[in-house]
Amino acid sequence: MAERFRQITIIGTGLIGGSIGMAARRRALAKRVVGVGRKEDDADGPVRFGAVDVFTDDAAEAVKKADLVVLAVPVGQLEAVARSIAPSLQNGTTVTDVGSVKGGLVGRLEGSLGPQARFVGGHPIAGRERSGVAAADADLFEGAVCVLTPTPATDAKALDAVEALWTGLGARVVRLDPGEHDRIFAAVSHLPHLVAYALISALTEMDEQDPGLMSHSAGGLRDFTRIAASSPEMWRDICLANPDRIVEAVARFERSLSRLKSAVAAGDGEWLLAEFSAARTTRERLAEKTPSDSAANSPKRRVRGK
Amino acid sequence: MAERFRQITIIGTGLIGGSIGMAARRRALAKRVVGVGRKEDDADGPVRFGAVDVFTDDAAEAVKKADLVVLAVPVGQLEAVARSIAPSLQNGTTVTDVGSVKGGLVGRLEGSLGPQARFVGGHPIAGRERSGVAAADADLFEGAVCVLTPTPATDAKALDAVEALWTGLGARVVRLDPGEHDRIFAAVSHLPHLVAYALISALTEMDEQDPGLMSHSAGGLRDFTRIAASSPEMWRDICLANPDRIVEAVARFERSLSRLKSAVAAGDGEWLLAEFSAARTTRERLAEKTPSDSAANSPKRRVRGK
Repeated sequence: MAERFRQITIIGTGLIGGSIGMAARRRALAKRVVGVGRKEDDADGPVRFGAVDVFTDDAAEAVKKADLVVLAVPVGQLEAVARSIAPSLQNGTTVTDVGSVKGGLVGRLEGSLGPQARFVGGHPIAGRERSGVAAADADLFEGAVCVLTPTPATDAKALDAVEALWTGLGARVVRLDPGEHDRIFAAVSHLPHLVAYALISALTEMDEQDPGLMSHSAGGLRDFTRIAASSPEMWRDICLANPDRIVEAVARFERSLSRLKSAVAAGDGEWLLAEFSAARTTRERLAEKTPSDSAANSPKRRVRGK
Repeated sequence: MAERFRQITIIGTGLIGGSIGMAARRRALAKRVVGVGRKEDDADGPVRFGAVDVFTDDAAEAVKKADLVVLAVPVGQLEAVARSIAPSLQNGTTVTDVGSVKGGLVGRLEGSLGPQARFVGGHPIAGRERSGVAAADADLFEGAVCVLTPTPATDAKALDAVEALWTGLGARVVRLDPGEHDRIFAAVSHLPHLVAYALISALTEMDEQDPGLMSHSAGGLRDFTRIAASSPEMWRDICLANPDRIVEAVARFERSLSRLKSAVAAGDGEWLLAEFSAARTTRERLAEKTPSDSAANSPKRRVRGK
């Protein structure tokens, strides 16, 4: 069978970009995988780790012969990168991204890339505690979900191509409207991350007042705060790109917590028991739904779930 | 070497009580381990699982010959159990508990048990997602911390005996003032649990409005909400027994989260980056401190960290 792509150019060869390259090479999805990064990133060894066939810091040159360009830079850099490569794109080149925020960004990227590009927004739900190409893994997307966010402007063939990429990498593709994506991920991903950050911040304050306090924390807290180990830059970018929906989700959470706090203060055991029982039921449903409880995707390996 | 105890009587043979019995038998800490529970609990098989030598529903009879009595019932039942066995205790019997709340409860248990008992408050930091004697494990306390909470009224020999029990079970003993225990665990354990419950509650509401929303949740959320799978009864009891310190810890957390929300709303990327970076550093320190990241104590096995 011939390779699906002639050349995939991946701009940004960190954990996600590196894993895409590694998996695409392993699965022979492309004749050639070209990685683009800053010259100083070469030291990280995208070629040495087997993430790409060729590495360069010349994005304009690297996209010229690509039939698929993957933008795998942090959300905050996507528009600048899109603008920088726009003049070099061949007419009809398919471009996709892996950003954790879609919403208005998809339209802005369509604009920045110009009419010669066929853009499809993407967001693979996969991550690790560690970042960088050294943490990349050809199996990172195996069994994961990748959300694609087509708009009325999206080219059908480009959508097929990007779907073929992710299916080829082992992921299950789900399509969502960009705005719906951001509302959903504000709830199931951005909110939990902010809550974990706030928890660590509060505990740090309490530890300062009560030295040694945090040394008593056990597995529960460690599990709970694992997601706070993710890249600070990535989460800053996500917060800046999806503020309204995040604020709304946080406000909802604040109301839930306030109700709990009132019940604790009032000693309302009956209400607390009902609330905790309902939460356990929901949690069990959640654990069944997320397939990554398997050994291969243990909590230690697959973490961020951004 | 002779066994440290003649007879250990464990009242309540669920996960914790059952594991204590199992480990005490395996490590030959006592000549005899007697389990006490409701008659209908016999079906759960404390004897069959090897948790105790003998099982009975007659607590009064079971404590008569014990030199160590372990109260391993839920926090909400401790005082009633203490009152019910008090008349049957031999003079000088050492009694301890495994409740997740200490504070005023320690003094009330001293009172309920009467002058013939020598009480020492205890709290092993260990748990599992599953409960009941079927989940009990002779290695549950291996490498765990057990907090003992002596007061000025605590008998020194009784304290030594309870410390010998936990050391014998493989745990590391830490001593804390009962009030300090409750302040610390309100922060590092009770608060994270309430936050997880509130998160699930908020997500459930959002899922009702936006059906299918929760199906997009990934590993991060699953890790995060694992502690919400703990026993609802246990957490109700903890909330009822430690309300002031829990409300105080929740209020602190609310202020941290509110600051984050304001920074997101204001688009203050610089502040967010500093906050997220600090949280990552703290989290890394936390991960180093808690030893249960080893394979034997993976997040899937050792969970609650109540």
